Amino acid sequence: MQYSVLDDNYVERIRTSFQKQGAMDTIGGRMTKVEPGEVHIEFPFSDAITQQHGFVHAGIMTAVVDTACGYAASTLMSAESEVLTVEYKVNFLSPAKGTEFVASGRVIKPGRIISVCIGEVMVKEETGYKTVILMQATMMAIPK
Amino acid sequence: MQYSVLDDNYVERIRTSFQKQGAMDTIGGRMTKVEPGEVHIEFPFSDAITQQHGFVHAGIMTAVVDTACGYAASTLMSAESEVLTVEYKVNFLSPAKGTEFVASGRVIKPGRIISVCIGEVMVKEETGYKTVILMQATMMAIPK
Amino acid sequence: MQYSVLDDNYVERIRTSFQKQGAMDTIGGRMTKVEPGEVHIEFPFSDAITQQHGFVHAGIMTAVVDTACGYAASTLMSAESEVLTVEYKVNFLSPAKGTEFVASGRVIKPGRIISVCIGEVMVKEETGYKTVILMQATMMAIPK
Amino acid sequence: MQYSVLDDNYVERIRTSFQKQGAMDTIGGRMTKVEPGEVHIEFPFSDAITQQHGFVHAGIMTAVVDTACGYAASTLMSAESEVLTVEYKVNFLSPAKGTEFVASGRVIKPGRIISVCIGEVMVKEETGYKTVILMQATMMAIPK
Repeated sequence: MQYSVLDDNYVERIRTSFQKQGAMDTIGGRMTKVEPGEVHIEFPFSDAITQQHGFVHAGIMTAVVDTACGYAASTLMSAESEVLTVEYKVNFLSPAKGTEFVASGRVIKPGRIISVCIGEVMVKEETGYKTVILMQATMMAIPK
Repeated sequence: MQYSVLDDNYVERIRTSFQKQGAMDTIGGRMTKVEPGEVHIEFPFSDAITQQHGFVHAGIMTAVVDTACGYAASTLMSAESEVLTVEYKVNFLSPAKGTEFVASGRVIKPGRIISVCIGEVMVKEETGYKTVILMQATMMAIPK
Repeated sequence: MQYSVLDDNYVERIRTSFQKQGAMDTIGGRMTKVEPGEVHIEFPFSDAITQQHGFVHAGIMTAVVDTACGYAASTLMSAESEVLTVEYKVNFLSPAKGTEFVASGRVIKPGRIISVCIGEVMVKEETGYKTVILMQATMMAIPK
Repeated sequence: MQYSVLDDNYVERIRTSFQKQGAMDTIGGRMTKVEPGEVHIEFPFSDAITQQHGFVHAGIMTAVVDTACGYAASTLMSAESEVLTVEYKVNFLSPAKGTEFVASGRVIKPGRIISVCIGEVMVKEETGYKTVILMQATMMAIPK
């Protein structure tokens, strides 16, 4: 879907905001795509984000894909709005075995107040990418 | 509700598993309660887990309450089972303004394969605790 | 929790709205409790609402508890607002074997725009009520 | 995605099961597609399934798309298995204004025990179909 933006400066606005997230710094997240209605964040495996079996913690992946979905919604908001996560739901499809991950957030229904997004975390495998997390999220625009 | 356990050694089993989570070490999580069907994890504010406004990242809180719910389900499982998060849904009720947090996971419907849990993250305030996150989660027992 | 209402006429407003729901008439729903932040709807088993094994259809129960949660949120709204279901998530805890059901909706976090509710469907058994469905729902107030 | 089936007789098995759903008969649902991993159910507007504003009740649409997702998962199960809805989450994207609806359920991650599905309800408009509901659902295979 093609979306038009309300804030021509959205890329810089979002990248600046992303830089302030201590959590994304800890996780090693890099914002690799910021387009109208879609944001990607890549992050590597590290011992700092594991669960008990040595794979990436499901909740940490959730944190990254939440961030991707929130900023995806934010790309379509005005410069005077903040994005707030109202809620999300996540299914875990496969174990997060791998060393390189990409979280994507995509707006599927933009709205003046409420936006609905779909998010995924994919792990890089030899032959391509495998989806390990699927998120359905509700984001909200609030005045700054 | 009162639950009986299948594994008398569940506290040690769960504490040992928890110690292996690099993510919980990064977050500073401490398991403060492990009882049949209920687990609490406390964690402090730190710059390593913030979002763009300097509060604790919603996704990081989700990671902790996911862990609390997973181990809550695990308390009622046999020593031969692993717990796996099938899915969860989280609502964000209030901003996570504070310095001390407690995540709780509670089994509301145990099952041989599928268990349903409710989780909360609360922030310590002067006059008590305020709920900032509410989780409804589905956990699964799989053979080790 | 004790909530105060914005519309003193909320009971009549909600009962009048409920009467207009063709779906609730088909299901045989009766609104048995309308209090600030809480609404109950009772409904009987009937062949018109079954799934393939002859029990009440999970989705039909969802429809009733959605209605209970929506009106629970509506009790705390002004007379100039409509309630809209943003989203919900439902876990199915037990088979819906029985002849009398009660769906309850309860506001756990009221808000000017967004309210979060918890809902349940319980089936009447000889010794009490058993929860068969647990819902976590997000409701929204919109101007009429 | 291309899926292979375990039960060559799955179409008849599923159609026979669908016929037993009193709720789908009440709603006027017709199963218009049964393929490996995907099921469609069409249904018309009727006064028997409305909410207070005269549109189709969100919960009733949920019941139909739950059925579509459940049978979509069932297409990939053995003849000895029953499908059970573990849980689902639904976002409401647009008002259900229209007279013809189609609910689709699609398996996105099949599993021996747990399958994850995506469902949609679309309303027929002059120029095509508009999505009004988006579902993410967890289905489970249990022995008959």
